[in-house]
Amino acid sequence: MANRFVKGASEKCGLPPGTIVHVGDKWTGPIKITVIDYDKDHCQVQKISDVEEVFPFRDSPTVTWINIDGIHDVTIIDRLGKYFNIHPLVLEDILHTTQRPKIEEFEDYIYIVLRMLYHSDTTDEQDDGPKIISEQISLLLGRNFVISFQEVGGDIFDPVLIRLKGSKGRIREMGTDYLAYSLIDSIVDNYFVVLEKLGERIETLEDELLDRPTPDTLEELHVLRNEMIFLRKSVWPLREVSNNLLRSESDLITRPTQIYIKDIYDHTIQVIDTIETYRDMLSGMLDIYLSSINNKMNEVMKVLTIIATIFIPLTFLAGVYGMNFEYMPELSWKWGYPVLWCIMSVMAISMFFYFRKKKWL
Amino acid sequence: MANRFVKGASEKCGLPPGTIVHVGDKWTGPIKITVIDYDKDHCQVQKISDVEEVFPFRDSPTVTWINIDGIHDVTIIDRLGKYFNIHPLVLEDILHTTQRPKIEEFEDYIYIVLRMLYHSDTTDEQDDGPKIISEQISLLLGRNFVISFQEVGGDIFDPVLIRLKGSKGRIREMGTDYLAYSLIDSIVDNYFVVLEKLGERIETLEDELLDRPTPDTLEELHVLRNEMIFLRKSVWPLREVSNNLLRSESDLITRPTQIYIKDIYDHTIQVIDTIETYRDMLSGMLDIYLSSINNKMNEVMKVLTIIATIFIPLTFLAGVYGMNFEYMPELSWKWGYPVLWCIMSVMAISMFFYFRKKKWL
Amino acid sequence: MANRFVKGASEKCGLPPGTIVHVGDKWTGPIKITVIDYDKDHCQVQKISDVEEVFPFRDSPTVTWINIDGIHDVTIIDRLGKYFNIHPLVLEDILHTTQRPKIEEFEDYIYIVLRMLYHSDTTDEQDDGPKIISEQISLLLGRNFVISFQEVGGDIFDPVLIRLKGSKGRIREMGTDYLAYSLIDSIVDNYFVVLEKLGERIETLEDELLDRPTPDTLEELHVLRNEMIFLRKSVWPLREVSNNLLRSESDLITRPTQIYIKDIYDHTIQVIDTIETYRDMLSGMLDIYLSSINNKMNEVMKVLTIIATIFIPLTFLAGVYGMNFEYMPELSWKWGYPVLWCIMSVMAISMFFYFRKKKWL
Amino acid sequence: MANRFVKGASEKCGLPPGTIVHVGDKWTGPIKITVIDYDKDHCQVQKISDVEEVFPFRDSPTVTWINIDGIHDVTIIDRLGKYFNIHPLVLEDILHTTQRPKIEEFEDYIYIVLRMLYHSDTTDEQDDGPKIISEQISLLLGRNFVISFQEVGGDIFDPVLIRLKGSKGRIREMGTDYLAYSLIDSIVDNYFVVLEKLGERIETLEDELLDRPTPDTLEELHVLRNEMIFLRKSVWPLREVSNNLLRSESDLITRPTQIYIKDIYDHTIQVIDTIETYRDMLSGMLDIYLSSINNKMNEVMKVLTIIATIFIPLTFLAGVYGMNFEYMPELSWKWGYPVLWCIMSVMAISMFFYFRKKKWL
Amino acid sequence: MANRFVKGASEKCGLPPGTIVHVGDKWTGPIKITVIDYDKDHCQVQKISDVEEVFPFRDSPTVTWINIDGIHDVTIIDRLGKYFNIHPLVLEDILHTTQRPKIEEFEDYIYIVLRMLYHSDTTDEQDDGPKIISEQISLLLGRNFVISFQEVGGDIFDPVLIRLKGSKGRIREMGTDYLAYSLIDSIVDNYFVVLEKLGERIETLEDELLDRPTPDTLEELHVLRNEMIFLRKSVWPLREVSNNLLRSESDLITRPTQIYIKDIYDHTIQVIDTIETYRDMLSGMLDIYLSSINNKMNEVMKVLTIIATIFIPLTFLAGVYGMNFEYMPELSWKWGYPVLWCIMSVMAISMFFYFRKKKWL
Repeated sequence: MANRFVKGASEKCGLPPGTIVHVGDKWTGPIKITVIDYDKDHCQVQKISDVEEVFPFRDSPTVTWINIDGIHDVTIIDRLGKYFNIHPLVLEDILHTTQRPKIEEFEDYIYIVLRMLYHSDTTDEQDDGPKIISEQISLLLGRNFVISFQEVGGDIFDPVLIRLKGSKGRIREMGTDYLAYSLIDSIVDNYFVVLEKLGERIETLEDELLDRPTPDTLEELHVLRNEMIFLRKSVWPLREVSNNLLRSESDLITRPTQIYIKDIYDHTIQVIDTIETYRDMLSGMLDIYLSSINNKMNEVMKVLTIIATIFIPLTFLAGVYGMNFEYMPELSWKWGYPVLWCIMSVMAISMFFYFRKKKWL
Repeated sequence: MANRFVKGASEKCGLPPGTIVHVGDKWTGPIKITVIDYDKDHCQVQKISDVEEVFPFRDSPTVTWINIDGIHDVTIIDRLGKYFNIHPLVLEDILHTTQRPKIEEFEDYIYIVLRMLYHSDTTDEQDDGPKIISEQISLLLGRNFVISFQEVGGDIFDPVLIRLKGSKGRIREMGTDYLAYSLIDSIVDNYFVVLEKLGERIETLEDELLDRPTPDTLEELHVLRNEMIFLRKSVWPLREVSNNLLRSESDLITRPTQIYIKDIYDHTIQVIDTIETYRDMLSGMLDIYLSSINNKMNEVMKVLTIIATIFIPLTFLAGVYGMNFEYMPELSWKWGYPVLWCIMSVMAISMFFYFRKKKWL
Repeated sequence: MANRFVKGASEKCGLPPGTIVHVGDKWTGPIKITVIDYDKDHCQVQKISDVEEVFPFRDSPTVTWINIDGIHDVTIIDRLGKYFNIHPLVLEDILHTTQRPKIEEFEDYIYIVLRMLYHSDTTDEQDDGPKIISEQISLLLGRNFVISFQEVGGDIFDPVLIRLKGSKGRIREMGTDYLAYSLIDSIVDNYFVVLEKLGERIETLEDELLDRPTPDTLEELHVLRNEMIFLRKSVWPLREVSNNLLRSESDLITRPTQIYIKDIYDHTIQVIDTIETYRDMLSGMLDIYLSSINNKMNEVMKVLTIIATIFIPLTFLAGVYGMNFEYMPELSWKWGYPVLWCIMSVMAISMFFYFRKKKWL
Repeated sequence: MANRFVKGASEKCGLPPGTIVHVGDKWTGPIKITVIDYDKDHCQVQKISDVEEVFPFRDSPTVTWINIDGIHDVTIIDRLGKYFNIHPLVLEDILHTTQRPKIEEFEDYIYIVLRMLYHSDTTDEQDDGPKIISEQISLLLGRNFVISFQEVGGDIFDPVLIRLKGSKGRIREMGTDYLAYSLIDSIVDNYFVVLEKLGERIETLEDELLDRPTPDTLEELHVLRNEMIFLRKSVWPLREVSNNLLRSESDLITRPTQIYIKDIYDHTIQVIDTIETYRDMLSGMLDIYLSSINNKMNEVMKVLTIIATIFIPLTFLAGVYGMNFEYMPELSWKWGYPVLWCIMSVMAISMFFYFRKKKWL
Repeated sequence: MANRFVKGASEKCGLPPGTIVHVGDKWTGPIKITVIDYDKDHCQVQKISDVEEVFPFRDSPTVTWINIDGIHDVTIIDRLGKYFNIHPLVLEDILHTTQRPKIEEFEDYIYIVLRMLYHSDTTDEQDDGPKIISEQISLLLGRNFVISFQEVGGDIFDPVLIRLKGSKGRIREMGTDYLAYSLIDSIVDNYFVVLEKLGERIETLEDELLDRPTPDTLEELHVLRNEMIFLRKSVWPLREVSNNLLRSESDLITRPTQIYIKDIYDHTIQVIDTIETYRDMLSGMLDIYLSSINNKMNEVMKVLTIIATIFIPLTFLAGVYGMNFEYMPELSWKWGYPVLWCIMSVMAISMFFYFRKKKWL
């Protein structure tokens, strides 16, 4: 699990910088390119098979959103990059899917990398192992185009598409910066869904922990803590990204959009805050687990000690009168046996009260 | 419990930004609108049923405080927002009741979100679960109006109302900024009440911990630690809020009021300081709890060990002389039995002194 | 104990800001007002009964130090404050005795709050509970007066008084700023005395911990850690206070005095440093305590295990030959009994060497 | 292992600053000097035996890369340093191989120290002890030369050499700054390889930990944590180095290269991020290990307690009826023996259900 | 041990600031004053008995280094201070030997306090207690003199003296700033020697810890951790000192010397880095120690449990057939005894395999 943080990073070792190589899990489906061209009055959605059909939109005055699902075909990215005049290092980063969220401003475009997170819903599988999956989303925000790259096609951007088609909200009236904002907002909104599910898992675990802790609880706790580490690593840099976007002096970001970007910044802070809170709670839960185990062991020890300290002396006494010495006067006393029973009962009962006094019972 | 940090956040996922949807626990009572209009010489308090009755006050020269208890009726907020020209994102935040405290300055108004905290006093219920409840309070500070939104109607602002009516202090002589300050001050003052109650709970727990720790102590400790996490999350951002308010360059904040805002800042620091102190104390208490359990187990082990190490060898001896060998000379010795008793007593006593030397007794 | 951090803070909840109410432990003695008026050539010390006798000194050219022991009489503070033109929020803070150390600069005066610390020397009482007591000291540094407020009269400022009277050092030649510095310096110097006593307690505890840890050691450790938390909370803000004083642009602070203020800053850093060091040491000591308990339990377990594993098999053997089967050939062997003794001895001795090999003995 | 952080540092104690002494592991092979001289159109690679053959390249207009494998011959470094006019303190640092990564800008050259890391692949040796080895690499970036110093010859720079020879990428067209960037990039890229291997080790350990923890797991965990400390110490300062390089105002760094240096900065952040993540994971794993041991001990205790609490009372009963009192009526009852068996069975079975109810079985 | 951080600080409480009192361990030897006067061409070393012999050097154009071993004679320091026009607070600090390293710039001189560290080599004494001893070194860097104060005479500055006499390096050609640098460098270089010895102790401890941990290991660990705390407190402020020296705008520091001061800064960072690394390693070692103890206890428990669970049931069986019931048919069976042996063997063996399956053997 540790390796998902650097997976495949070494494959590129030794290649010249700017070499365009796809690094990441190979998704085998076909690459889907969707072009949405719109302005205030019209909105046209096209599925495209050849990347060259996209080129005319570069210089059209309308806003064009090019969404690319699947980045494993290097040649497509390469041709797109060359035509749209993207720096080779940016293309390299788009394909190298273990990027840390970041923002890079160039003269003609802004490059933003984010990580999309979702809970895998494989409930029928075994429960051990992480359930949060991360996917790299790259955005290129140009003067009249936005290009988005997804590792695997998903439905994360569907609400934006629906709003564009239905002309709901102010999205059709505003420029590429607002479109980029909407896409980022979709991703950040999705973090809350992931956090809510995690919150439920933590709650379940907490109940389990206080009621009936088992080694499985410990393992789930371990998994959750690692997921927090993973989440934190994915989301934390977003703070800087949204802050940089907010303070950007690029003319690609217009003033009316900036107030919306502030909203993203606020949400990011809220997400980070919640992650930190969860981390605090989980680390508190481990302490509780440890204390709880110790408590249980204490309980077990007490039972053992009570039984042993009551019966060991009695057994000793019984042993004494099982000895075969010829001269043991007690043995021939008439009341010897019942008297011994009395003595033993008194011992047991006084032990019992001793333990009660010590609060062991 | 974890989920109270993001509750309902996912419901909004996919909606266009600026959509006004109420997110939070649904409070079913009617919305109460109170308008307090005052200047140095008069003070008029009105309960209002229709939101439109509020509109004339927007442009009146007197200071108007509109307090709205209950925000679950979206249309009221919407109409108010439109008439007072509030940004849709602000309206969205007012209704989305899991905001982090923040301040946003616009040209005509300042938007402030705070979290009100109170201890639920449900003493007849079961004791497990958090007792600190948080409610979102939004303030809109305009040139001659202050609008306050509470999730649920409460009596938190009553002292301010009384001072206004009774013309106590300098409140009637000063403007909207002082009114807003007074409202914030009420909220921050209330934190101290919450902290004092928490302090009492911590003290009780501490005594319990050192005297007679039980698994319930552990659970209460766990609950308190989570409440600290919750408190911290609610109060920490207030530091930045009051600092921003202090350094605000908006002309809505006048110089004489700034010295009072400094006071809020100081109180916030003090609250945060106390929360951190409580956290430190609680984390120290867990260590003590663990050590205390270990100590107790040690105690139990010692009793077991003393009993066992004294009686096991004696029982062995008794067993030896209970054997049925035909040729066991000791059995027929006249003084065999008393001599054995002597030997056993010596063994027991020397064990006893051995343990005393080892400080086990 | 937790509550000493916010004690009484809630009493003020709901009062208008700037209301002058005494918050804190009520000290019942009479208020003592001492006026020391001096310049290079003379020094006149007066005990005063009526606060109005102080007023003439406000405008005298000589340096006047007004020391007020006891602040529970609100009217005195109020009249003084009005005459010396002190902001109501400052008066509120002087009376509200749970302030965090802070500095506030006004045009005509500087307000400084500090916390005086001392070890209570109640050795005949029970030892549990904190021994460090904190008292709020407020200073008002004006152009030709310094007013100092103490919660309870103490002898902390006596050395300064003696130096003034005896004209020792440069104190008589310099202005109010140097006097204020001298008072602060007395307080900070006193921190070292407290730290030294704490250091002794830590040393004693450390020796106890390594030699013979008991549950009392744990409790003392807990008390000391809480006292560190308390100390830290009281002293930490002083760093900012002295730094602000150092960089103050107020003309109330003259250049020659600034080098002395730097000295206070250095001392504060040293105090904070030492507190952090003590905290580190104490947290290391808890680890040692835990390890030490574990070690002891291990020891106990070993003794139990050795006794049990040696004697349980032997007892079993004795039990076997105590059985009453009719056909047990060993019983009638002539050497049966001694042979069994030999076997048992061999078993015990080999066990002994086994444990020695395992380093359990 | 601790000592690898300061090894040999004390040897230099007392020597005048700027004294050129080799500090570090003595590598005994011969020093290899390779000179690569290139411009856009040609590229000439020479192995050189005498250091003086290098001197003519200092003033040639082409880019010259001088790579020196082995720095234990002080005279070579000294002569080179004098001819290229390098400050004695820099020469001292090149030879003192425990430097922290740093950058120093001089008028004519920039001095950069980095640490190269690699996993030793000694799999046949014993597994205990660190496997990550660090080597100091120094770079001198001049106007038309780059000199690189390696402690031991390695193949880390081979890809750069191949690219130079094969004229792949833009390396031949750009200046010394791009060459230096390429060398640094090789080193940073290599960190990912090390991290990937470490990630694998962590994963293996994690599986082991949850399935079957042994004391060896603990030792491996300890080794890994120390390696993280070592890694962190080696890589962390690189952040500042690359940042300084990025913001350098030296004219030795041209604008087109700066975007590449930004890439190194990003990679460094990613490496540091990953190291922190690994540290977090490893510290979580220790907690799991401890809990896991506690769990196991609990298990053992339960078995012991169950056996003991079932059989100790039964043994006592058997002992009672093994006593030799003359008057024990039960002994002569006809059904005494079977009735006792019944009683004992009932006791054992009820114990069994008691433990089942307590969830011990 | 804790008290060495503030020793004697309270003695000064109540004295006027600038009072010159020696605080620290009283060293009883005579004070030694050495004057080294040199320029490029000559170097004259004198032992001086009366402090007044030093005065003529104040205004001589040559560089004069006055080294004072022993500061317990207040009058000497006082006279020196008055003649060289040193601020009373500085003299106070020179004599008060628990200063934190700091730098203070005055118009005519710079005052620097450092802490010299060395390992006490009292190997024949008992091993418990700290071995790192700290001594305060004060430097006064004037226009043509450097005065150094040592608490106890040592040989730390001998290499500098030798270099001066032998005219090795550039020391004779440069001014007072370079001399001060050389002295500081000697002290910092010495830190590495201390660190190296500590590193060795940590290594030894680590080996001991993994092989055969004893309570002594724990104590040594505790001592080492406290020494780290002590070291850190002594060295950490040096970072700021060297940084301030580096950025000093005083004309007492010439540009050529500044590059050497940068070297001190680098060394300081390296020392701090190493201390932090050691701290991390030591805190990791405590975890290992705790786990290791737990492991051992687990081992002990297993042995006990195995023995007990095998023999307790067997002993019970033997007890049963030792009962004296008249009607026990098994007793008179011919094969009763051997059959019982068989049953008991089967029970023991199946237990054995059960434990093997559970991996307890």
